[in-house]
Amino acid sequence: MGKHLVKFVPDDVSATVDTGVNILRAASLAGIEIKSTCGGKGSCGRCAIKVLDGQVRYEEGNRSKKLKDQGLNLACQTIVEGDVTIEVPKDSRLDEHQVVLENENYGKVLEAKEVDILEGYEFSPLCRKVQLTLDPPNLTENTSDLTRLQAKLRQNTDCKELIVGLPILQHLAETLRQEDWKVTATLACMNGITEIVQVEPGHVANDGYGLAIDIGTTTVVVYLVDLSNGETIDKLGTYNKQAKYGDDVISRMIHAGEEGGLQELQQAVIGSLNELIDKLLDRKDVSSEDVHVAIMAGNSTMAHLLLGLPPKYIRLEPYIPTATELPPVKAKELQIHINPEAWVLNFPAVASYVGGDIVSGVLATKISQADEMTLFIDIGTNGEIVLGNKEFMISCACSAGPAFEGGGITFGMRAMNGAIERVRISPKTYSVQLETIGDGAPIGICGSGLIDCLAKLHKVGLIDRTGQFFRDKETPRLRKTDDGWEFVLAWAEESGNNQDVVITEPDIKNLLRSKGAVFAGIQSLLKSMQMDVNMIEKIIIAGGFGNYLNVEDAVQIGLLPDVDRDRYEFLGNTSVKGAKLALLSQAAYKKSIQLGHMMTYLELSAGTTFMDEFVSATFIPHTDLTLFPSVKDKE
Amino acid sequence: MGKHLVKFVPDDVSATVDTGVNILRAASLAGIEIKSTCGGKGSCGRCAIKVLDGQVRYEEGNRSKKLKDQGLNLACQTIVEGDVTIEVPKDSRLDEHQVVLENENYGKVLEAKEVDILEGYEFSPLCRKVQLTLDPPNLTENTSDLTRLQAKLRQNTDCKELIVGLPILQHLAETLRQEDWKVTATLACMNGITEIVQVEPGHVANDGYGLAIDIGTTTVVVYLVDLSNGETIDKLGTYNKQAKYGDDVISRMIHAGEEGGLQELQQAVIGSLNELIDKLLDRKDVSSEDVHVAIMAGNSTMAHLLLGLPPKYIRLEPYIPTATELPPVKAKELQIHINPEAWVLNFPAVASYVGGDIVSGVLATKISQADEMTLFIDIGTNGEIVLGNKEFMISCACSAGPAFEGGGITFGMRAMNGAIERVRISPKTYSVQLETIGDGAPIGICGSGLIDCLAKLHKVGLIDRTGQFFRDKETPRLRKTDDGWEFVLAWAEESGNNQDVVITEPDIKNLLRSKGAVFAGIQSLLKSMQMDVNMIEKIIIAGGFGNYLNVEDAVQIGLLPDVDRDRYEFLGNTSVKGAKLALLSQAAYKKSIQLGHMMTYLELSAGTTFMDEFVSATFIPHTDLTLFPSVKDKE
Repeated sequence: MGKHLVKFVPDDVSATVDTGVNILRAASLAGIEIKSTCGGKGSCGRCAIKVLDGQVRYEEGNRSKKLKDQGLNLACQTIVEGDVTIEVPKDSRLDEHQVVLENENYGKVLEAKEVDILEGYEFSPLCRKVQLTLDPPNLTENTSDLTRLQAKLRQNTDCKELIVGLPILQHLAETLRQEDWKVTATLACMNGITEIVQVEPGHVANDGYGLAIDIGTTTVVVYLVDLSNGETIDKLGTYNKQAKYGDDVISRMIHAGEEGGLQELQQAVIGSLNELIDKLLDRKDVSSEDVHVAIMAGNSTMAHLLLGLPPKYIRLEPYIPTATELPPVKAKELQIHINPEAWVLNFPAVASYVGGDIVSGVLATKISQADEMTLFIDIGTNGEIVLGNKEFMISCACSAGPAFEGGGITFGMRAMNGAIERVRISPKTYSVQLETIGDGAPIGICGSGLIDCLAKLHKVGLIDRTGQFFRDKETPRLRKTDDGWEFVLAWAEESGNNQDVVITEPDIKNLLRSKGAVFAGIQSLLKSMQMDVNMIEKIIIAGGFGNYLNVEDAVQIGLLPDVDRDRYEFLGNTSVKGAKLALLSQAAYKKSIQLGHMMTYLELSAGTTFMDEFVSATFIPHTDLTLFPSVKDKE
Repeated sequence: MGKHLVKFVPDDVSATVDTGVNILRAASLAGIEIKSTCGGKGSCGRCAIKVLDGQVRYEEGNRSKKLKDQGLNLACQTIVEGDVTIEVPKDSRLDEHQVVLENENYGKVLEAKEVDILEGYEFSPLCRKVQLTLDPPNLTENTSDLTRLQAKLRQNTDCKELIVGLPILQHLAETLRQEDWKVTATLACMNGITEIVQVEPGHVANDGYGLAIDIGTTTVVVYLVDLSNGETIDKLGTYNKQAKYGDDVISRMIHAGEEGGLQELQQAVIGSLNELIDKLLDRKDVSSEDVHVAIMAGNSTMAHLLLGLPPKYIRLEPYIPTATELPPVKAKELQIHINPEAWVLNFPAVASYVGGDIVSGVLATKISQADEMTLFIDIGTNGEIVLGNKEFMISCACSAGPAFEGGGITFGMRAMNGAIERVRISPKTYSVQLETIGDGAPIGICGSGLIDCLAKLHKVGLIDRTGQFFRDKETPRLRKTDDGWEFVLAWAEESGNNQDVVITEPDIKNLLRSKGAVFAGIQSLLKSMQMDVNMIEKIIIAGGFGNYLNVEDAVQIGLLPDVDRDRYEFLGNTSVKGAKLALLSQAAYKKSIQLGHMMTYLELSAGTTFMDEFVSATFIPHTDLTLFPSVKDKE
């Protein structure tokens, strides 16, 4: 077996690999992030590359005619047999700049929205600095350095139990004496225990920093928070580098079960975090030593992978995570690029599929303190739903599939430039008017566009309640191909990629299954509490999906309950907001631990309620039209 | 600068070093332990070696005429300039087999003495194993693996707070399922917190093991304790490898301040411990994974060096340690060869010179529960003294110097074969009868021999109360040399090393200063409590020194108080015994932490009491003869 040099252009980076390694893996080694939804199984067709030079062997993968025509091959199906040069097209790359953060203005001052997060809680960050001037020892007052420091801290704060780790002790003697017994101690307070996590010589003015982090399956978002005033001084998002091992949690879990896979996934997400952290600290000129705590909110699989816990039994029935309440770990244990002694905390989960991101969202939205009966919905590949108020909270997860994120849809794409987000169809001529993100030529359809499209196709009578096209409608946009029926949203000459942008009948069926799963989840929760939709006083839509969602459309297709539209609220990334709240309030952090215990979990696959509800909900809007009075009115 | 091969014979091991490195360092790198009292400063003259071949350069060191005659050079003053071959004589080597353990019979059963250690405490080891059979999860009872385990543990034990570290969680899912939800959890209970430190598949019969460890400046002793029944199933001692950086704590502290010195000292003692641990586990066929806790008792400097804490300010006035109460650390942090998740605990110290070994001794001897007024004395290079009972405890440390360990004495040596331990001198002819350890030909004098010798020289009227020889005594054994007056204990032809074994006037002065320091310490403690020697109801002699000490001799020279001899008790290595007690009783461990706070420390260098007492106590037996009625009687 030989060693071969795989060179990538235009990047001009390379990796040395053994004979038999595929280009997807070689690219990863060379630091190039290539898209791969299937995790290198040759089925998703996203990892297209061009072999410019050298000896390779091709395996059989799902290579489209279009790729063939362009002379492109799948990276995962291209096997190195000698030195090669590879071109990676822009379309095949994961690009961090495509990640959309809310409040994209990286303000130096706090937006009003950010300040509100503390409502109901006192400002008491998990870490703070205390300036001290100790009395120097002498022969008759000769307690140890640590005892002296602890005594002064007890005097100047309300901390009783004060623990300290070995690395701090190893420098304590010199640190205390360096500025003549003037020091600044950084305290981390969690669950009644206070740890001295840093001691600096002299009186240090700043109060240190913390990170609020949302680890999503697709993207990771990091907020850099000044702990002296609670301001988010900067924030960044990027794609989760785990994406190269598969797009969704299921393919990640499968990869984790392969040889070395768990470590690869752990390193990938830590790599994504460190990339963001390095950039944030660099551009705000904050030393990594000054970041003393990080709080992570992510779904159970993400939390497991971050900590190197095998997620195998999350995937297999009866879906058991190793732990829902995860122990605090030191940054050095995970090699996160902040102070090595900093605590890295994970939000507790409720169950395998209602994770720390949802608990964080519930914390941020203060449902557990609310009088109103609230429905909290976070829609992604999984739809996680929480129903409750200060009296009770019940939660469930339903597998919505990737349709709302553009997965499994012929021209599906994420919400980025060129994505169709709004559709108008003339009820007479079936002519189409489109709105795209960035107002460019359309190249695909994002989740909100798909929902709108479905609503409009139904409204103008192009599809029936099962999502099937009426074959007799006379318009060139409706046509039958080898793959079945489809409707043209944009002709090749209008589109941004010289292809007709279409929505097919299988696309529509996919969408109906997705929306059906979410609505069936809502109905199951309500029924378990013997409630109906009219008893819901507030509906909170969380997650990136909500940023582009048109509620009217969503109700029209039967995705969301048909209640007063002003009961709906969009709160964006509640996961990172909850993490920030816990960072700034010891009481909120404590509350988050309690929430993990308080929230009941309803396993939808136990019993038949969900399946019955799902079947009824795969119609537009539903088999039971009384649930959708406003839709019925328009019929 | 070149690289050179330094070969050592007869060991036939070698080290590759740069030009300019000395042989003492090269030997250390090659794994050969050479004696060095001064820590490589060329002053102690102990590290003699012979250069057989190759290119070296000599620096000026304190090389005796004897060494010159034998063609020997000091290893620390011999500088490598090319490939060399070095012979290391037996006398220059630290030999682990010379370490004497009490109860040298490595019994498989517990000696009666060992069982008594638990008196007054309930058997409740810091670690124990619990066999569990969990109910498997299902869709409706789907709590996490950890929650399931914790719930069962709470059911089957009285533990409430149950924490767990990441490494355990990383294998938990598979471990629980491997033997169909039958597992054995190992719990470590300390200070009210219980940690799950291991989870094994199936029901494991053994209860795991713990280590009780005494880290002395000279020797380290490890007991391997079966935590199911409290038996010491094996024990071993060896020299502390730190000895190559200096014999006493002061030279170690100085070395710690040099570049890389602290790390060398830390690695040296950990190396000594691991050597013993490896041997013990190997010969008892115990897996390192089954050792779940280790308790260390050592003086403050030893504890600092073990944990990598710089001892600089222990040495400098006002003698401040970094910490007296040391945080528990994981075995993996120190790379101790037991279960990586095992806790390594250090006994708390009272002050820089009353360390964890003394607190451990006080715990073992149960002084803090005693009615009788007790004096606890541990004599080594430092004499540590505790006075008290259940009402109060006060402690101090006095610098006795190395004389009692043979240091600074012309023919001084440790208590090993060939050491004179008993001396008889005819009051008429001044002829001498000797007893040696192992009954061999005498080669030197150990501490107990020195005390006896001093007592006898005074008793037969060869020295006056200041320790000066009466010059007019007519015996060839009393003679004047270039270095002053000396008395011959063994002639060259009787001795084991073909030299006259002598005791010199400077030797005697050294001994008087040593014994004076100890007695002055005792007097200072008593005076601080406005007490006198007659109020002492019990005197406990701890430490290896007590094994060979003749109390009558010690009283005669004024080292120990002149009270009823049956008030004296020898308890041997109370340091390791206290460690074992803490290992076997959670209450005792807790007590040890309290003792660190309860014991008052009297700093002898503050004020003038000690100095006045010291001057009076450097006479035989003392300036105040009323303190020594039994000695006065014999005068």
